[in-house]
Amino acid sequence: LPTPTLFTEMDTLQQDGDELEWKETARWVKFEEKVEEGGERWSKPHVSTLSLHSLFELRTCLQTGAVLLDLEGYSLPQIVDEIIEKQLQEGGITADQRENISFVLLRKHRHQTKRTKHRSPADVGKTGGAASEEHRSPGAPGFRSTEDLRLKQQANSYGRLRECTCLSLKNKFMKKIPRDAEASNVLVGEVDFLDKPFVAFVRLAQATTLGGLTEVPVPTRFLFVLLGPLGKAKAYNQIGRAMATLMVDDLFSDVAYKARDRDDLIAGIDEFLDEVIVLPPGEWDPKIRIEPPKKVTPADKRKSVLSLNELGQMNGKAGAGGGLSEDEEMPAPHEMGEELAFTGRFCGGLYLDIKRKLPWVFSDFYEGFHLQSISAVLFIYLGCITNAITFGGLLGDATDNYQGVMESFLGTALAGTVFCLFSGQPLIILSSTGPILIFEKLLYEFSKSNGIDYMELRLWIGIHSCLQCFVLVATDASYIIRYMTRFTEEGFSSLISFIFISDAIKKMAGSFKYYPINTAFRPDYVTAYKCECLAPDPSDHQTLVNVTDLDWSQLSKKECLTYGGSLQGTSCKFVPDLALMSFILFFGTYSMTVSLKKFKFSRYFPTKVRRLISDFSIFMSIMTFVGLDMLMGLKTPKLIVPTELRPTRPDRGWLVMPFAKNPWWVYVASFVPALLVTILIFMDQQISAVIVNRKENKLKKGCGYHLDLFWVGVLMAVCSFLGLPWYVAATVISIAHIDSLKMESESSAPGEQPQFLGVREQRLTGILVFVLTGVSIFLAPILQYIPMPVLYGVFLYMGVASLSGIQVTGFWDRMKLYMMPSKHQPDFAYLRHVPLRRVHLFTLVQVICLAVLWTLKSTFLAIIFPIMILGLMVVRKLLDMVFSQHDLAWIDDVLPVKEKKKKSKDEDKKKKGKEKRKDKKKTDDLDDEVRNAGVCCPPLVIRSMTWIIPV
Amino acid sequence: LPTPTLFTEMDTLQQDGDELEWKETARWVKFEEKVEEGGERWSKPHVSTLSLHSLFELRTCLQTGAVLLDLEGYSLPQIVDEIIEKQLQEGGITADQRENISFVLLRKHRHQTKRTKHRSPADVGKTGGAASEEHRSPGAPGFRSTEDLRLKQQANSYGRLRECTCLSLKNKFMKKIPRDAEASNVLVGEVDFLDKPFVAFVRLAQATTLGGLTEVPVPTRFLFVLLGPLGKAKAYNQIGRAMATLMVDDLFSDVAYKARDRDDLIAGIDEFLDEVIVLPPGEWDPKIRIEPPKKVTPADKRKSVLSLNELGQMNGKAGAGGGLSEDEEMPAPHEMGEELAFTGRFCGGLYLDIKRKLPWVFSDFYEGFHLQSISAVLFIYLGCITNAITFGGLLGDATDNYQGVMESFLGTALAGTVFCLFSGQPLIILSSTGPILIFEKLLYEFSKSNGIDYMELRLWIGIHSCLQCFVLVATDASYIIRYMTRFTEEGFSSLISFIFISDAIKKMAGSFKYYPINTAFRPDYVTAYKCECLAPDPSDHQTLVNVTDLDWSQLSKKECLTYGGSLQGTSCKFVPDLALMSFILFFGTYSMTVSLKKFKFSRYFPTKVRRLISDFSIFMSIMTFVGLDMLMGLKTPKLIVPTELRPTRPDRGWLVMPFAKNPWWVYVASFVPALLVTILIFMDQQISAVIVNRKENKLKKGCGYHLDLFWVGVLMAVCSFLGLPWYVAATVISIAHIDSLKMESESSAPGEQPQFLGVREQRLTGILVFVLTGVSIFLAPILQYIPMPVLYGVFLYMGVASLSGIQVTGFWDRMKLYMMPSKHQPDFAYLRHVPLRRVHLFTLVQVICLAVLWTLKSTFLAIIFPIMILGLMVVRKLLDMVFSQHDLAWIDDVLPVKEKKKKSKDEDKKKKGKEKRKDKKKTDDLDDEVRNAGVCCPPLVIRSMTWIIPV
Repeated sequence: LPTPTLFTEMDTLQQDGDELEWKETARWVKFEEKVEEGGERWSKPHVSTLSLHSLFELRTCLQTGAVLLDLEGYSLPQIVDEIIEKQLQEGGITADQRENISFVLLRKHRHQTKRTKHRSPADVGKTGGAASEEHRSPGAPGFRSTEDLRLKQQANSYGRLRECTCLSLKNKFMKKIPRDAEASNVLVGEVDFLDKPFVAFVRLAQATTLGGLTEVPVPTRFLFVLLGPLGKAKAYNQIGRAMATLMVDDLFSDVAYKARDRDDLIAGIDEFLDEVIVLPPGEWDPKIRIEPPKKVTPADKRKSVLSLNELGQMNGKAGAGGGLSEDEEMPAPHEMGEELAFTGRFCGGLYLDIKRKLPWVFSDFYEGFHLQSISAVLFIYLGCITNAITFGGLLGDATDNYQGVMESFLGTALAGTVFCLFSGQPLIILSSTGPILIFEKLLYEFSKSNGIDYMELRLWIGIHSCLQCFVLVATDASYIIRYMTRFTEEGFSSLISFIFISDAIKKMAGSFKYYPINTAFRPDYVTAYKCECLAPDPSDHQTLVNVTDLDWSQLSKKECLTYGGSLQGTSCKFVPDLALMSFILFFGTYSMTVSLKKFKFSRYFPTKVRRLISDFSIFMSIMTFVGLDMLMGLKTPKLIVPTELRPTRPDRGWLVMPFAKNPWWVYVASFVPALLVTILIFMDQQISAVIVNRKENKLKKGCGYHLDLFWVGVLMAVCSFLGLPWYVAATVISIAHIDSLKMESESSAPGEQPQFLGVREQRLTGILVFVLTGVSIFLAPILQYIPMPVLYGVFLYMGVASLSGIQVTGFWDRMKLYMMPSKHQPDFAYLRHVPLRRVHLFTLVQVICLAVLWTLKSTFLAIIFPIMILGLMVVRKLLDMVFSQHDLAWIDDVLPVKEKKKKSKDEDKKKKGKEKRKDKKKTDDLDDEVRNAGVCCPPLVIRSMTWIIPV
Repeated sequence: LPTPTLFTEMDTLQQDGDELEWKETARWVKFEEKVEEGGERWSKPHVSTLSLHSLFELRTCLQTGAVLLDLEGYSLPQIVDEIIEKQLQEGGITADQRENISFVLLRKHRHQTKRTKHRSPADVGKTGGAASEEHRSPGAPGFRSTEDLRLKQQANSYGRLRECTCLSLKNKFMKKIPRDAEASNVLVGEVDFLDKPFVAFVRLAQATTLGGLTEVPVPTRFLFVLLGPLGKAKAYNQIGRAMATLMVDDLFSDVAYKARDRDDLIAGIDEFLDEVIVLPPGEWDPKIRIEPPKKVTPADKRKSVLSLNELGQMNGKAGAGGGLSEDEEMPAPHEMGEELAFTGRFCGGLYLDIKRKLPWVFSDFYEGFHLQSISAVLFIYLGCITNAITFGGLLGDATDNYQGVMESFLGTALAGTVFCLFSGQPLIILSSTGPILIFEKLLYEFSKSNGIDYMELRLWIGIHSCLQCFVLVATDASYIIRYMTRFTEEGFSSLISFIFISDAIKKMAGSFKYYPINTAFRPDYVTAYKCECLAPDPSDHQTLVNVTDLDWSQLSKKECLTYGGSLQGTSCKFVPDLALMSFILFFGTYSMTVSLKKFKFSRYFPTKVRRLISDFSIFMSIMTFVGLDMLMGLKTPKLIVPTELRPTRPDRGWLVMPFAKNPWWVYVASFVPALLVTILIFMDQQISAVIVNRKENKLKKGCGYHLDLFWVGVLMAVCSFLGLPWYVAATVISIAHIDSLKMESESSAPGEQPQFLGVREQRLTGILVFVLTGVSIFLAPILQYIPMPVLYGVFLYMGVASLSGIQVTGFWDRMKLYMMPSKHQPDFAYLRHVPLRRVHLFTLVQVICLAVLWTLKSTFLAIIFPIMILGLMVVRKLLDMVFSQHDLAWIDDVLPVKEKKKKSKDEDKKKKGKEKRKDKKKTDDLDDEVRNAGVCCPPLVIRSMTWIIPV
């Protein structure tokens, strides 16, 4: 049976005016929170730094004081009576101290709540030079003896005891304490009537709520009392803190719950001492509050760390390391799981995928009903329409509006909904992606320049590609993904990012060409700038009929040229303001998004608000700069959106016919480009899927690489028939989807990092997002206000973010290392284990690969660039010859070799399990062990130590 | 006699192929640096986290092992012989182990240097799955027994021992070790021929260089050897680390140098243990490396922290605090020193100032000859000319070029040189400042609208102001500065900052008015935009003579209007591109400067490069955007600089005549505005001086508030005669001057923060800066390329930087607190001591004061705004009634009350001195004390502990 979590509160005896009271000075859920000197503020949770001295003193306290285990207590006065009785028996106190001790222990408790005693400003002003006068510790001058106070207060003391309970009832802090928690109360103080310390440790048989003893309505299980003679308040405080820290220690609290006598407790302290981490006094200032670490060794592992001493370092690695158990094992290999096992049967993988997903059919829906889903849907929806708009706009640009924003919206909605309904990994969000965009662009240019009908060609490519996907699915080809390590993933996504960035900048630079600036303009000579439409030479009758009928000066530029006029003047070829305005919109959107994203890490506003701002940063930036653009009223290039539900280009219908427009051989020949598309889609889809399915995300429902690919293939064909863009998994947005659905443990102790439990895996959010996207077509009237430069800015942001973002963890970080002197480099795990020059060499290889890919992409070879991604995997394989597996395991991942490894792993697991059981046994046997201890060792020699040097 | 600093190196026994060798695994100057597992990299210096266990084991080691104090050692073999001999005598080892131990201890030492053994890539690739195979600890499989190795290697072992010395000779690391340092070597390892540990602690009579034992050529004083049976390498390592950490502890190393026998050492460990800081195992992960703290309690203070336990908490404050000695005293009051004492004699302060500065006359010059001065001069020069250009441009703007950039340069050079030569505080840099600029602007507007000659009026104001300054100097009026707390300083400088910011933005917004954008422009209708100059109606003969002679269409806008023509057309009132370009320049300069300034805190590039980039950020931004402007070639408004050495405005000479242009009463009446200027100058000068002279800067040569004011007065008059701007201390740039002249202790241990020693106080840098500024007038041809928006950007930056910068420490930080949830607030000292709502209230008062000042500034009352600064001091005085002195001491400063306080302070000092002496005595008597210890306490009870609870 696991013991309950302990909440510990420390109260110190203080004299407030004429009254003695217990004032809360610190509390522990897991870390220490202290009441600051000002008395109105909790410190940040921090690691309790104790002095070794106080721990030893505490040990002596428990050795000499009263220890009452499993006391039947129902009220504080009764418990206090029992304690005093016990001490009287043991001769710890004299009978005449009885009254006073009882009086002191029953003083009211003042807790640290938000609503403190109100003091009027005038009142405060009066105190002048001695502000802290009010709260006198008994040792201070102006102190009145307990005897006096007792006689004066006796009458109304019990009433007061219950006074504060009501205040703490609805305490927000309660949420931070686990539901099963029990309290331990530590009371320390100095009094004038004692000449030696009065110590008591009480464990109640039943956890009981003892009036206003505890800040929160948690029943008290343990009570530690330390009253001592005047003049040592500080030391008592330290001992109290040590006790409190012990009580919240997982292992010690276990001991405290199970202890059968005083010796068990002492043994518990000794065990604690043995594990304690020590900072040398000359190297650390105890005033510094240490922030809670991100991760703490869990209690059950602590034992095994200790036992390293006993087990000895039989393996070779240990000798080199000097740190405290710093010799981590090799990083856990990049596990792919059985999803990618090669079955060898026809559609074996697909069958397994379906089998794996079937049991979740219902939970995939009902698990979506949660508040978190709403915010996730809204966030991903915004991401999706931004994507749809951006890619729609760019696709329209690239294909002369054969596929525009309208198609993009419809396609996204259709493909996304279908995929989320039936796929193996519904957390993946389909979207247009960069590689597809590039392919479409090249394809359109090719068909245009060769007189082939683009839409029909595309349809055939889609059909071929769909069939090829089916072949890949049937043959379990996704197996190959196992050979894809971070090296390949990084290469791929970096390339995509670079393309994003360069495209955004190119587009922007285009504005300056499209709207040339008249740099020679002199404001004073404004009269010299004009552009007139001159009628063509009347003698030249070739072009037009009624030349003379036209008022040439009233014609627009386009009309003028249409009718054969010529433009003359200094301002004809210039367009004022638009280029610069575009630049401002572009750069503004980008930098505002970056700043807002960063806002999550600032200290301002509550976490939720910051998260909201960060999540909606793209949306807010778009809104801001659309607003600015509207305010300026300049004719910047805007997004072209059809206002009705019809194809962007009026000369095409909703259905693409497979025959008629192209010669027959095109239908066959399109097999070749289709192969490219298939490779492209396969790589793009599966790399994203691998990233989504990474172990870090703790997905429980399994995934389905084959099933996913099957549906992507189907959608390829469908979209081709409807003339909609092709869709494939989008890494960035899929990760955002997962992030927004992450579940964390709810009540974590203050200062403790909430634990990541897993992802809300379901299909509902995805489906909702895409249904909403479909509905958004009616947003067209609004969308047409969005200037293109704003979208380019978003594009730039997406490129930069995905470079430095989650999915390219290693590469970009390692690039930065080149520019950092080694002493400033962050403490990456691989830097502790791999020589820097090896890291640099690895990065260099990646950079060269990227450079080669980039160069090829810029030539006519661009169309085969998906194949080059495959080349990356070959390069990675070759790297095995240059780098040791050890280094690669740290920087990259190890390539799968044989099944042998797995087996040895299983053995490892078994071993670990055994050890755990042993640990368990250890704690169970604790009591017996404790009994046998402390025989041959001197009193303070720690029981559980294994001595290397004979004592 | 202080004991030398110890450098500690820990070597571990390792088997490299067939050879046994000692490999350096960690070193300590003050903090621990560990050789990372990869073996080619030093970890960052970090605090040594030890386990309590290892400390206890070490204690036992020293109790049981051989301790040889003051051994006469001259070579390693001889020392090893002596150790073995001693152990043989004590029966620790048997005779047959002798050879083996000696063999092991004399193995060569491999140190961690940059040049490691080269391994070819092919070689590395071969190792495959087991990379760390090469360095086998003896316990590992493949290990060969020492006996085998010994027989094989015997022949060439001594030769090897000396092999490495040459490598380490010119080690850069040497600089980090103090010159007097001695080494302590810790050798730990596991061997196969021992069945119980072999321990020896050696102190040599003379520090001796022992061949290649130590990484750096530092003579060895201590040697600790721990060899033990196989299988416990980890534990030996921990014990070695504990020993090394002890050796670098200031107090323990003292004990080690003075110890007379084994017991002294044990007592030293006990004392160390008693002070040790303990982290509970459940709250901290030992794998985390703790970065060295910014400040560590110095060794001599550590004792007194401990003695708190004994002295008890007689004062009231202690009871409230629960932390480890966290009850800091009230913050040290804002000390003004005797410089601001009221002498009561005529020119008493001035006399004292001169007397104080006279002894430094020569050192003020020769102390300037240092490399650091060059970089300081360059940096401040750039700041000064930027300032001169910016203010010159703005002054020119404000006064219709009566004072322009040329005057600004000459004035800066003249005033600065004189001030640096003769002032009391030559670190202060004179410059035009915001308040003066505002005053000049108002004055010019006033005189222009009232038909008074500006230059002559200004001259008289200057003369009056100069005389008023003399009166202030003669009467020691600077005494009043004592009543100026941070509240006033912050109010003043915040206001200045806000004015900077608002002015910069206003100026920028002005561009949009000055160059209106034609928002209705449609690119296609370019033909519709023109602006024609129409001849005036010929029937109206009033204005011009030969109207018909002119080709009206060829006239510029200005000419057209001059000749009475009218402009007609849609583009007449618009100017394309310039407004937007100006905005880009403005915002670009600002944000680039901000980013470059921040670069100092990034991890990229070595510290020096980063510092350079940060220091030159303004210069680099200006250059970049001037470049961009030139590249674009647009006619943005540029800085107007005269190309010859003559006043900016051609209609004025270099000397302003006092009489003739204005009526006589103006000469008298100018007394009133002069009073304003005097107050303004007094406040501005002295507030800056107070900030410069703050205690934090550790200035040693004293300052001279009266002398400074005297020279400012003189310069006022001189500048007025020459028609140059008035100059006064510029806070921001003066602080930059001090920062660039800061001296830091040179060789600080790795990880330790270098200590700030003081500022290179001299006159040379200042003088050079201003001479250079004077010479810069010949830069005019370059300066005219600078667009005004760039300067506005710099202006904006200066405003924002000084808001969040050094001089407004508290206010802006406290403003931010409003927006932070309390759990995210940084750990400011005052937040630990003052309730948050009091802090907020104080900030609110400041905000209201600022708002009032700002409102007044915007009305016609602006001209008396210096007087309002005085009002701030009154408000501050009133605050004494609302806030307690305790709170004010933390948030602000305490106002000086009476001389009484000082006395009690002196007493405090005396007391402290006494305590120190006591401490000293304590260490001297250490030996005797040690002798008496350990009688009534159980063996492990720490000797120096004061037990509260009877053991």
